[in-house]
Amino acid sequence: MLGGIEAGGTKFVCIVGSGPDEVSAVERFPTEDPAVTIERAIDFFWRHGPLESLGVASFGPLELRPDSPRYGYITTTPKPGWSGTDLAGAFGRALGIPIGWDTDVNGAALAEWRWGAGRGARSLVYLTIGTGIGGGAVIDGRPLHGLVHPEMGHVSVPRQPDDPFPGSCPFHGDCWEGLASGPALADRFGRKGEELGELTAAAVDLEARYLAAGLRNVIYVLAPERIVIGGGIAELPDLLPALRRRIGAELAGYPDLAEQTEDQFITRPELGDRAGALGALLLAEAALHQR
Amino acid sequence: MLGGIEAGGTKFVCIVGSGPDEVSAVERFPTEDPAVTIERAIDFFWRHGPLESLGVASFGPLELRPDSPRYGYITTTPKPGWSGTDLAGAFGRALGIPIGWDTDVNGAALAEWRWGAGRGARSLVYLTIGTGIGGGAVIDGRPLHGLVHPEMGHVSVPRQPDDPFPGSCPFHGDCWEGLASGPALADRFGRKGEELGELTAAAVDLEARYLAAGLRNVIYVLAPERIVIGGGIAELPDLLPALRRRIGAELAGYPDLAEQTEDQFITRPELGDRAGALGALLLAEAALHQR
Repeated sequence: MLGGIEAGGTKFVCIVGSGPDEVSAVERFPTEDPAVTIERAIDFFWRHGPLESLGVASFGPLELRPDSPRYGYITTTPKPGWSGTDLAGAFGRALGIPIGWDTDVNGAALAEWRWGAGRGARSLVYLTIGTGIGGGAVIDGRPLHGLVHPEMGHVSVPRQPDDPFPGSCPFHGDCWEGLASGPALADRFGRKGEELGELTAAAVDLEARYLAAGLRNVIYVLAPERIVIGGGIAELPDLLPALRRRIGAELAGYPDLAEQTEDQFITRPELGDRAGALGALLLAEAALHQR
Repeated sequence: MLGGIEAGGTKFVCIVGSGPDEVSAVERFPTEDPAVTIERAIDFFWRHGPLESLGVASFGPLELRPDSPRYGYITTTPKPGWSGTDLAGAFGRALGIPIGWDTDVNGAALAEWRWGAGRGARSLVYLTIGTGIGGGAVIDGRPLHGLVHPEMGHVSVPRQPDDPFPGSCPFHGDCWEGLASGPALADRFGRKGEELGELTAAAVDLEARYLAAGLRNVIYVLAPERIVIGGGIAELPDLLPALRRRIGAELAGYPDLAEQTEDQFITRPELGDRAGALGALLLAEAALHQR
């Protein structure tokens, strides 16, 4: 039996099972301080175990290099109390089993590639547009990382001529996340959270232009076969159709690939809010084979 | 014995051997029309064969998907006469051996990863800055492609405030390649080819700013461990040090990784103008194992 955790900045999703149709237990609880939250997750797995291995798909930034002394740590997150938390290590010590470890978005990318909207794709990008913009990728069945994991939300995008908003990224100001995340929309249009559903057509169009501008950079660097977009902002009515229309203009016929303007190129997730935790099961499975 | 071709837009480099220190024959000749050029390469390999397999690292765009009826073709290149050329197929039919097939920059990336400036890196990006900007990548030992190969030269970069140049890309105008390729520099500063070595410090600084701006997008999407920059423009005196200084400003401390500001993060190739052809030998080797 495998365990999976999506360790998100606002909530933890803990799961026991082996796939979307074989889930024997699931629990969601808010992300509080590390000691309380980790203890609650460990308690869940004690009650529903024993497990062979556990996967953790976490908010970041993370140390993912196996040869680093800080492998398994959350590194420099702005989330109070969590910087320098040895998250993978805490679960490994408490449960005494192999731990798989990657970002929440790489976890969601893995799950959508294996069971969801990206089945059969050679390469898939998973983006979440919400309180930030996060991106993960699966290439030939493996989650993408190198020196560190991707931080796709921080690519640059050209400012739209009708947009005076300075951007909300504490590092870059008007990077992709700074211009197109949920808080950036709320700051501009005076709404937040669930109220974003009431945005005007002009606001949705501006968001679609920024999303297309950032996706262009992802597409030219990674050449993905499929792009899956989750997160609260992606649920705005009419946003995805508007984004698909804008992508053609961004690519401007180069390379001239029909696949990049088809509806299925940019699509919604199929696994909903369980994608991260289900992907963590795949990390658990991989950790078992690496023992 | 393995054969390799770097099929470039201006010249072909043909090589027989198994690595940088085991090259038994090499020949360079200009890229003329497809029939003449392909014939000349085939003649070289007849004279220096027999080969077990051949790798072709070609200018693009290319069809790389093995299940495509046009696998092995150069697709929609602006180079007169070459659009729709079945380059891999022509060599396969003439020589009757397995053919490896990828982009020239993925070939160079492979060679630098195996034998050159990227030895031991988990992920490496190879960029060439010359008549255009091309980018390839090797991740966990495999060249990167998905729906198509990367087209990194076409990411967007913010226009520098002191630069009125409209950009020279026929598709996007002021994309990275449109603002920072050799022709874009020559158009602005009235020099070309070898004379670019005489550029003023201000011109080199502008180029460094654009290169850093584009690299930032590559870094945030791919998170490479090493970046190798080849091509004529990269040889401009003082350019690489200026570029390294600018990268820190682009990343603005996120993520806060010392490795991304060290000199070895962005480096020159070690294999010179043989990188593409040597990488083609690795494509040949891989083709042998895929039979």
